[in-house]
Amino acid sequence: MSCKNFAFAENLDVEICLRLEQRMTQIAFQDYYPDQLSYCYGCGRLNEHGLQIKSYWDGDQAVCLFQPRPYHIAIPGFVYGGLIASLIDCHSTGTAAAAAARATGSELQPDSPYRFLTAALHVDYLRPTPLGVTLEVRAHVQEIKGRKVVISSTLLANGEVCARGEVVCIQVPDHLLPAQ
Amino acid sequence: MSCKNFAFAENLDVEICLRLEQRMTQIAFQDYYPDQLSYCYGCGRLNEHGLQIKSYWDGDQAVCLFQPRPYHIAIPGFVYGGLIASLIDCHSTGTAAAAAARATGSELQPDSPYRFLTAALHVDYLRPTPLGVTLEVRAHVQEIKGRKVVISSTLLANGEVCARGEVVCIQVPDHLLPAQ
Repeated sequence: MSCKNFAFAENLDVEICLRLEQRMTQIAFQDYYPDQLSYCYGCGRLNEHGLQIKSYWDGDQAVCLFQPRPYHIAIPGFVYGGLIASLIDCHSTGTAAAAAARATGSELQPDSPYRFLTAALHVDYLRPTPLGVTLEVRAHVQEIKGRKVVISSTLLANGEVCARGEVVCIQVPDHLLPAQ
Repeated sequence: MSCKNFAFAENLDVEICLRLEQRMTQIAFQDYYPDQLSYCYGCGRLNEHGLQIKSYWDGDQAVCLFQPRPYHIAIPGFVYGGLIASLIDCHSTGTAAAAAARATGSELQPDSPYRFLTAALHVDYLRPTPLGVTLEVRAHVQEIKGRKVVISSTLLANGEVCARGEVVCIQVPDHLLPAQ
């Protein structure tokens, strides 16, 4: 069975593909950030050198798919751990923003005030992550308390869990935000 | 007082500068890795797209200096947390290799068998890390036991600690190593 809309991603399995097609009707969390906050190297849509990762709700979980570039390696054939940390980091802060909006009974909007920074990042690398396949990061909200959101996540390749992450996210203080 | 050999790095203070000048007589840990293991995105000297970080002994500590590029930002003016995680990650695995050699009473050599992967990475982001200055990561060996080395580190900007890291490094199993 072929994957009509994602033919460019040869290694996507059908399940991921169908979920992606559903998700085409959604806007990524990161694409709600205002322009001034959209230059993050990991997830800013306006950082042309960056990874530009995208996160979406999938029920109560948030999903990010990312295809590492051929040079994102640790040793030949395996994905660089710092890239894995970056994916988990940005996917978690994005999920924190979306979760903070949901906690108020709504969803992210272009004028949502939620933007999170990482206070602590932990990654357990369970097995080498193969290069050449699309990685899937699945995050869920472990805790929301005041300006703090804790996100745990798993990173999968070929459906196998290769890494687990936990990120403590803190809502960006107003004095660090660039003027709108 | 000017910094003769490092005039390109305007933000280096004199102390760092003098240490760098001493270090010009040393070879970076990563530059001992054999070619086949020198394509890491974080520290491989042969990865032309990568960060190419370099680590050196400074007494019992290991030091890495890195100047983030202008696009390595989280929000304007501050360094991307995923880059910080990457610096801590590669500096720690490099330090683990050098420490494993020292534990046998020698120093790294071109044919040293030591190459480490990350089993667990933890970073506490203590304050936003300013962009535009040279970052200094200082690592020390917390534990060496069999094929496991634990490295703790601090990341400084303008002499101020901005992040702390702890990395559990495991010597790469032979079956993951590319043929020499």
